[in-house]
Amino acid sequence: VPTSRLEAFSDGVFAIAITLLVLEVKVPARHGGSLQDQLLHQWPSYLSYLISFLIIGIIWVNHHACLSHIDHVDRAFQFINVGFLMAVAFIPFVSAIVSEFIEVPGDERAAAVLYGTTLTITAIFFNVLWQYAARGRRLIRPDADPREVEGITRSFWPGAFIYASATAVALVSPIASLAVLGGLALFYMLPNRRWARAAG
Amino acid sequence: VPTSRLEAFSDGVFAIAITLLVLEVKVPARHGGSLQDQLLHQWPSYLSYLISFLIIGIIWVNHHACLSHIDHVDRAFQFINVGFLMAVAFIPFVSAIVSEFIEVPGDERAAAVLYGTTLTITAIFFNVLWQYAARGRRLIRPDADPREVEGITRSFWPGAFIYASATAVALVSPIASLAVLGGLALFYMLPNRRWARAAG
Amino acid sequence: VPTSRLEAFSDGVFAIAITLLVLEVKVPARHGGSLQDQLLHQWPSYLSYLISFLIIGIIWVNHHACLSHIDHVDRAFQFINVGFLMAVAFIPFVSAIVSEFIEVPGDERAAAVLYGTTLTITAIFFNVLWQYAARGRRLIRPDADPREVEGITRSFWPGAFIYASATAVALVSPIASLAVLGGLALFYMLPNRRWARAAG
Amino acid sequence: VPTSRLEAFSDGVFAIAITLLVLEVKVPARHGGSLQDQLLHQWPSYLSYLISFLIIGIIWVNHHACLSHIDHVDRAFQFINVGFLMAVAFIPFVSAIVSEFIEVPGDERAAAVLYGTTLTITAIFFNVLWQYAARGRRLIRPDADPREVEGITRSFWPGAFIYASATAVALVSPIASLAVLGGLALFYMLPNRRWARAAG
Repeated sequence: VPTSRLEAFSDGVFAIAITLLVLEVKVPARHGGSLQDQLLHQWPSYLSYLISFLIIGIIWVNHHACLSHIDHVDRAFQFINVGFLMAVAFIPFVSAIVSEFIEVPGDERAAAVLYGTTLTITAIFFNVLWQYAARGRRLIRPDADPREVEGITRSFWPGAFIYASATAVALVSPIASLAVLGGLALFYMLPNRRWARAAG
Repeated sequence: VPTSRLEAFSDGVFAIAITLLVLEVKVPARHGGSLQDQLLHQWPSYLSYLISFLIIGIIWVNHHACLSHIDHVDRAFQFINVGFLMAVAFIPFVSAIVSEFIEVPGDERAAAVLYGTTLTITAIFFNVLWQYAARGRRLIRPDADPREVEGITRSFWPGAFIYASATAVALVSPIASLAVLGGLALFYMLPNRRWARAAG
Repeated sequence: VPTSRLEAFSDGVFAIAITLLVLEVKVPARHGGSLQDQLLHQWPSYLSYLISFLIIGIIWVNHHACLSHIDHVDRAFQFINVGFLMAVAFIPFVSAIVSEFIEVPGDERAAAVLYGTTLTITAIFFNVLWQYAARGRRLIRPDADPREVEGITRSFWPGAFIYASATAVALVSPIASLAVLGGLALFYMLPNRRWARAAG
Repeated sequence: VPTSRLEAFSDGVFAIAITLLVLEVKVPARHGGSLQDQLLHQWPSYLSYLISFLIIGIIWVNHHACLSHIDHVDRAFQFINVGFLMAVAFIPFVSAIVSEFIEVPGDERAAAVLYGTTLTITAIFFNVLWQYAARGRRLIRPDADPREVEGITRSFWPGAFIYASATAVALVSPIASLAVLGGLALFYMLPNRRWARAAG
């Protein structure tokens, strides 16, 4: 089976999940005080919109890069991809939890742990997806550059580890955990940093 | 008419329906008690997210597999496909009903029956779609393997029957019905089980 | 400019508008009485889901059919198409209005007139889109069958007229107007009725 | 990397953002007075639906036009595009703010400034996206017409400037700012106005 329809379906889920993020930025109530104050007050919504948008964007770019080395897909790959998309599509929910609870004393920890855990699970699914395809070059294009394929393979493990670490940081400081995730996303976009690929 | 635009439109509906599922997982109220308790308390939401996501994912994989044997589509096929998509797009609604009512005594039966019935109707539409295309190889590619085509044709009838049975189970035990549907979805994803295809 | 990206964008809007319809079917309140009663009571939601889904589905099939005769698109065609999509994307809103108000004495007329007017405007935009492309075969493929092109051209005028008539019926009987629209949609799907194309 | 998957993903985000606009047009309450009065009373919703739909439509047409001159994309281009899409996907939120607050004395200014600022940021991202691709013809197709490429390059600067000006107008008169934006969108769609391209 060629990869084209799997790519189209995945791109659809990425595009919808990334665009649904905006539904979690709430329109203030008409009689809840000055609009400006209310807008400034919901800064956590903008922050989690920003971080989640960048992270899904990075995941999309990386999915794109991985699939470009893949020749065809089989049934197992399709189902691992469904599991991976299930984690990605859950991000708008956990992003909304962070928006709503990151300033609530006693709840901010659970919010940040849930967020980090979801990203870690996403990274693990992505890793499994790639390892399944790359093991013995099962689904890899015959003309794919072996060094590039191995480079991706090596870069995936630190990815899951980094997200798990950021989740652990949330146990100490929920805000620091978000700062780490946002910093990673920005760092990741710097050009010419080979190992930066790990953050995806 | 070639199949490509029908596939793109169907993939769009699948991708949106599967991603809208997350909108039915509700963000807890800020002052409704501990976030952690509230999150644990809404376990039926995660369960129906999981089951519905897997089922729509399986439907997508199977739609993909069926269409790969189809050469072109006609007007009737397009409209049967619209009916099929109407059933698929209804799944987020019945999934939300299950999340909300599976723990409400007296209402859990109606919720599970509605869910199972929607899946049964989806399976029947899918079956009709395929039988219409396969009858006398009406829309089948000239080079499609006859044994594979017949294998799909045979596997569709148990599919509708299995969903109808799971719906009947809901009359006795709503939770058992969900467990059967979730188990089927997982079983279906096991590799190399020819008749497992029936669950789609 | 080739038609492919316009088709992809239009298919995206159709797929999203058709799938958003389900968000207008409301999940009953947990303590608002028996689930079964509440579900039965909101029959107008299912009816308008059904009619709106079929109508958008028909529009999609027809857009598909029209574009298959078109060779390339220009700037004006793209903007007429944006206007057309603006009307299509408004259907979930007017469909929700019908669900909510078709049983409210005094408001049912306004609801049905709004619904019919939106469909009439959609039909007019669709007509303008086609006439722009077909006038002097401006954007038509050189190898398109002239009789088919003229057949489509002729069939569009009754389409707008039929929707306008159904809207006028709403002034007398809102329910009858919906029945006419639903009947038209079903009638339209019957095979081999040349002028049935008009309903799209 | 070829442009096709970037186009598909961008089209997905455009299509979803443009269709989500309708979710911000609220269904009136069933017992909130006459439906007709309530519908007429929420005219700002229709106005911002109209303006935002046209603006996203124009952005789509222009993105389409720019990408048709681009041969391939690199990692930096993909990330600038993600930032650009982040601004586009934010439009439904600021559009809802305008609908809700444009008639609230004291808040209408903040609403219109937020709206205009979002559009200005979108225009700046779009500009950066194009300049990155066009600088030294980095990503431009070898066969692209140099005069057309330079024409686009020149037309982008007034675009950001026009949006910034409309935002400044909002400080004096919020309604006038919206009128300018709506007028620009309509003006932009007139054929054969070379510099009209600037408004996108």
